[in-house]
Amino acid sequence: MLNVHTRLQAWQDRIESVLDDVLPPGQTHPARLHEAMRYSVLNGGKRMRPLLVYATGEALGIPLDHLDIPAAAIELVHVYSLVHDDLPAMDDDDLRRGKPTCHKAFDEATAILVGDALLTLAFQILASHPRMTASPAQRLHMIEQLGQAAGSRGMVGGQALDLAAVGKELSEIELENMHIHKTGALIRASVLLAAYSLDAMDAQRLQQLDHFAKCIGLAFQVQDDILDVESDTQTLGKTRGADEAAGKPTYPSIIGISASKAKLQDLYDEAMNALVSFGESADLLRRCAEFTVKRIR
Amino acid sequence: MLNVHTRLQAWQDRIESVLDDVLPPGQTHPARLHEAMRYSVLNGGKRMRPLLVYATGEALGIPLDHLDIPAAAIELVHVYSLVHDDLPAMDDDDLRRGKPTCHKAFDEATAILVGDALLTLAFQILASHPRMTASPAQRLHMIEQLGQAAGSRGMVGGQALDLAAVGKELSEIELENMHIHKTGALIRASVLLAAYSLDAMDAQRLQQLDHFAKCIGLAFQVQDDILDVESDTQTLGKTRGADEAAGKPTYPSIIGISASKAKLQDLYDEAMNALVSFGESADLLRRCAEFTVKRIR
Repeated sequence: MLNVHTRLQAWQDRIESVLDDVLPPGQTHPARLHEAMRYSVLNGGKRMRPLLVYATGEALGIPLDHLDIPAAAIELVHVYSLVHDDLPAMDDDDLRRGKPTCHKAFDEATAILVGDALLTLAFQILASHPRMTASPAQRLHMIEQLGQAAGSRGMVGGQALDLAAVGKELSEIELENMHIHKTGALIRASVLLAAYSLDAMDAQRLQQLDHFAKCIGLAFQVQDDILDVESDTQTLGKTRGADEAAGKPTYPSIIGISASKAKLQDLYDEAMNALVSFGESADLLRRCAEFTVKRIR
Repeated sequence: MLNVHTRLQAWQDRIESVLDDVLPPGQTHPARLHEAMRYSVLNGGKRMRPLLVYATGEALGIPLDHLDIPAAAIELVHVYSLVHDDLPAMDDDDLRRGKPTCHKAFDEATAILVGDALLTLAFQILASHPRMTASPAQRLHMIEQLGQAAGSRGMVGGQALDLAAVGKELSEIELENMHIHKTGALIRASVLLAAYSLDAMDAQRLQQLDHFAKCIGLAFQVQDDILDVESDTQTLGKTRGADEAAGKPTYPSIIGISASKAKLQDLYDEAMNALVSFGESADLLRRCAEFTVKRIR
């Protein structure tokens, strides 16, 4: 068997090709909109959520080709949220992965429409893409879960809480609640959508995977906040200290940098514990967790 | 049987109550976002698309309660598109149905998120709302159709074409192409989603209904353009002459006001012809068509 790094790389290549396939061709009418959609999606993202979908599938013995469309749908939702989040009325970010954000490379109106179209496409491919192998009932289950995770009581709700938090003092619990919605919900959905392609799923195993996902979802955000303080703009591919400058509460600003690092380690350990019963089949999930807490951007 | 007007009024009341039911309560966390969603949806809209869903259902003998969620889903997509369309980066409108637009009553970031959340909710309720009666395969068919109608090759694509058209001279064919996407796609979806709640649908009848929908979708837009020239701000509930002032091509600006009125009449006649074989069962569809071309706002 190939080593873990090589296999993650192969999955990254795989999801790039799936995304390329599900997106409308750049020359399709209206071309500027479709080019902007492709610019925003096919930009060298880390693809953490699709990798989680594939890694969960491996832990559960699900063939990769059953997971391509769920993985792509989640990444489309993630990218749409970044495109809207970067808008001047929201976080007003000029850089994303070292390149101009969608509204900078194109214009604000196009960026709004790109986000809208990517969100729509995510649901559409889960419903009807020819590469989708799940049964109708499974697909509906995935659409429902993705809707919950992405909507006003999930990711979009978290963004609303994030905006409302600017300049305010939050407690650690309020900060955690915000992140559970804003980032955690979609990371959980990555694990759950993979599991939903099984006809029947052992409730205990599902709960272990779900707990794993909750821990790394929050760990991801703690590491994000630490990097915002400790990294630099070039490494991050986005403006360092942007959260601090915007008056956004972060883990370091609320509990301090060393407590933040201890929290990160605790969440990582808890995530690893949740996978014990999966043995070697969860090696790539473990690698995803490792990547989440050790990444430098 | 009650008269047509009374029955349309009853359907309007019905969809208000369904929308109220599918929207998260205003006090649900995050409350400001949910209040803004309710403000944007429950604002006395004409509910033309839900009425078309119900009227199509009547023409096909489908019980009303099978149509409530498809009707609500389409209206949520319509309202999300208005909220985003009104944003400063798009049409920059301050008034909608005589009240401040969402970004004026709340703020721009909230309006972006409101649109995102309404679009997500539309797909979510089609997938899993307890009042949804259609089979899994029918629901997927509806989600696919709504995605097509709303996405980059449907409504959002039409909005991109609309933005690109500002200050340009379009041919009548280009203008028509823009409207078929921007407004026509979702009006067609209203008729098609109703039809998809049947297990089997006669292809010829489906084609007649589809043709009806295409005609009134375009007629709606022609009338919109005429009203933009001939009505006044108070009656319209939005700024009169806004399209003209924004340098947007309209039917009157391209083919003149009297040719626009003749076109409107032709489309209306064609829509009526498409319904001939339906007899009395299509009386409320006819009333919807009449309303489309005779409305004053």
